[in-house]
Amino acid sequence: MTAVLRPAVIGLDWGTSSLRGYLLAADGGVIDSIAKPWGIQHLPAGGFAGALHEVVAAWHGRDQGVTSLPVVAAGMVGSRQGWREVPYVDCPADAAAIARGLLAFDSETGRIHLVPGVIRRGPLPNVLRGEETQIVGALAREPALATESLVVLPGTHSKWVRVRGGRITSFDTFMTGELFALLRHHSLLGKPAREAGADTISAAATAAAFARGLSVARESGPEGVSGRLFTTRSLYLTGELPPAAALDYLSGLLVGEEIRSAIATHRGQPLPAIVLIGDDALCGRYSEAVAAFGVPQARVLGDSAAAGLWQVARAAGLVSVAGDSPRRAAHG
Amino acid sequence: MTAVLRPAVIGLDWGTSSLRGYLLAADGGVIDSIAKPWGIQHLPAGGFAGALHEVVAAWHGRDQGVTSLPVVAAGMVGSRQGWREVPYVDCPADAAAIARGLLAFDSETGRIHLVPGVIRRGPLPNVLRGEETQIVGALAREPALATESLVVLPGTHSKWVRVRGGRITSFDTFMTGELFALLRHHSLLGKPAREAGADTISAAATAAAFARGLSVARESGPEGVSGRLFTTRSLYLTGELPPAAALDYLSGLLVGEEIRSAIATHRGQPLPAIVLIGDDALCGRYSEAVAAFGVPQARVLGDSAAAGLWQVARAAGLVSVAGDSPRRAAHG
Repeated sequence: MTAVLRPAVIGLDWGTSSLRGYLLAADGGVIDSIAKPWGIQHLPAGGFAGALHEVVAAWHGRDQGVTSLPVVAAGMVGSRQGWREVPYVDCPADAAAIARGLLAFDSETGRIHLVPGVIRRGPLPNVLRGEETQIVGALAREPALATESLVVLPGTHSKWVRVRGGRITSFDTFMTGELFALLRHHSLLGKPAREAGADTISAAATAAAFARGLSVARESGPEGVSGRLFTTRSLYLTGELPPAAALDYLSGLLVGEEIRSAIATHRGQPLPAIVLIGDDALCGRYSEAVAAFGVPQARVLGDSAAAGLWQVARAAGLVSVAGDSPRRAAHG
Repeated sequence: MTAVLRPAVIGLDWGTSSLRGYLLAADGGVIDSIAKPWGIQHLPAGGFAGALHEVVAAWHGRDQGVTSLPVVAAGMVGSRQGWREVPYVDCPADAAAIARGLLAFDSETGRIHLVPGVIRRGPLPNVLRGEETQIVGALAREPALATESLVVLPGTHSKWVRVRGGRITSFDTFMTGELFALLRHHSLLGKPAREAGADTISAAATAAAFARGLSVARESGPEGVSGRLFTTRSLYLTGELPPAAALDYLSGLLVGEEIRSAIATHRGQPLPAIVLIGDDALCGRYSEAVAAFGVPQARVLGDSAAAGLWQVARAAGLVSVAGDSPRRAAHG
């Protein structure tokens, strides 16, 4: 068993606001993980190299060899604002295509392989970066999803990703989390809740307000919620929405609009099986929301970054598993 | 002619960010007007009374009698955050109903009559405050609109007001201006434009970007723009949208979504004649936008606050015009 747990690759899920590191065995097992608030816009002294050095140093006592392990890093670290910009890989994209798009270079802490994001070209192009690795991980964990599924990653910029035949074929972005944060902190809509503060309302009342927002969004039909956002204000003014519940209602409107619109893209056709990836609490809200729209129960699959980083490393030949044919990263 | 220009009533259009005062003759003619940056959240020393005193004092040299004139004030001055809160008048509402809802009280500068807003009750109530006076003014200026029209007041919170038989029968609110400002100043979408600064692009290029945003919104159909807002970012990332044009494209998306949704509320029925009221530049943009959606040319009618304030004063019996029967304000 000791041999199996020998570190083989370091995986980094490196986004805008946080850095998660995984010390991975040759079979993909997570030997250890570390979380730091070192998103690409909140780097410690020494910048990207300094942050990576700290993460690897934490594992040095465990195994002197960690400094020579390959590092695979996904997320905004490969964006224009990141360490190096990695060109996007085109849709349709699978783990092999993503592995071919790795950008490798040497750092003070060994060789880094940055994972590319994915682009859907066309008159209205769309991009993602970081989610591709989560999806590769999810498909490895649940091979049945590879045939056809709709992978939803809720968050600041929610992604609805269509997977078919093991490849990312298309996706849409909804700025739901960002819109909610903007309205919460800067708008008249968030003012009553900001003034009411927390803990002035029961969990049942907040759940009811969220459900009410979902219901208003669903019933808006082709109009959508743009003419209904202001009801967050008018329901408060008429005493029909407690100030402390206004934000839950607003969240229901915005999440509901995301789901309403996503369903509308299928023009009456049934949706493929929905899988939710990400933060547990947020996935729980989305699961409830999807159900409120009459869509069959969405499956909640936790964070899949570690599994995805290992799959990409494997596809690039950076770790070898019994049965794999030898390969090398295409770039470097 | 001198007798006609004798001041009869003072009208105030008193909103969140500005105060406009009108010295009005008995026939509704505007003798003089004044604009101050004294919105209800930016009052000078002395608060509401101090602001009013300053406005009236400016006209004292012209006519000693101005201090005894009735004052009619519309807008957020009558809201919960205003001088006094005036209860809303229910839909359907005409000038007479609005006049009956006036809240009168004595100030250091004479008797004030605050104009009520209008509420549309129902499961999703909606409110307006200030726009009712603009509409009363518009209907007086263009009596043909009273039969049936759709009065659009674009702005921070755009209002689409249905008028039939001289009464406000229903209306919707779109937070288009507020959403644009939030995304412009606080979001990733506004970042390229914030960094590019002004004057780096031609007027033709900004007009094209606005038209492109409108077109994307129109073609979104029942999906709406929620899944397309992020294209402001992806089109910039792929080099297809100059950073300085990103905000015009975003404006086109948001204004387009407002129009798309407003048209969808009519479920395939033709829209009544559209009339635009408000800031000239903004009305021009909306006029272009409405035309891009294939709706017959919208009529642009300028600011109608002064005409509306006078109509409300007249309906309340605060000014008497030959042919009017004597009346008094209902409240007081």
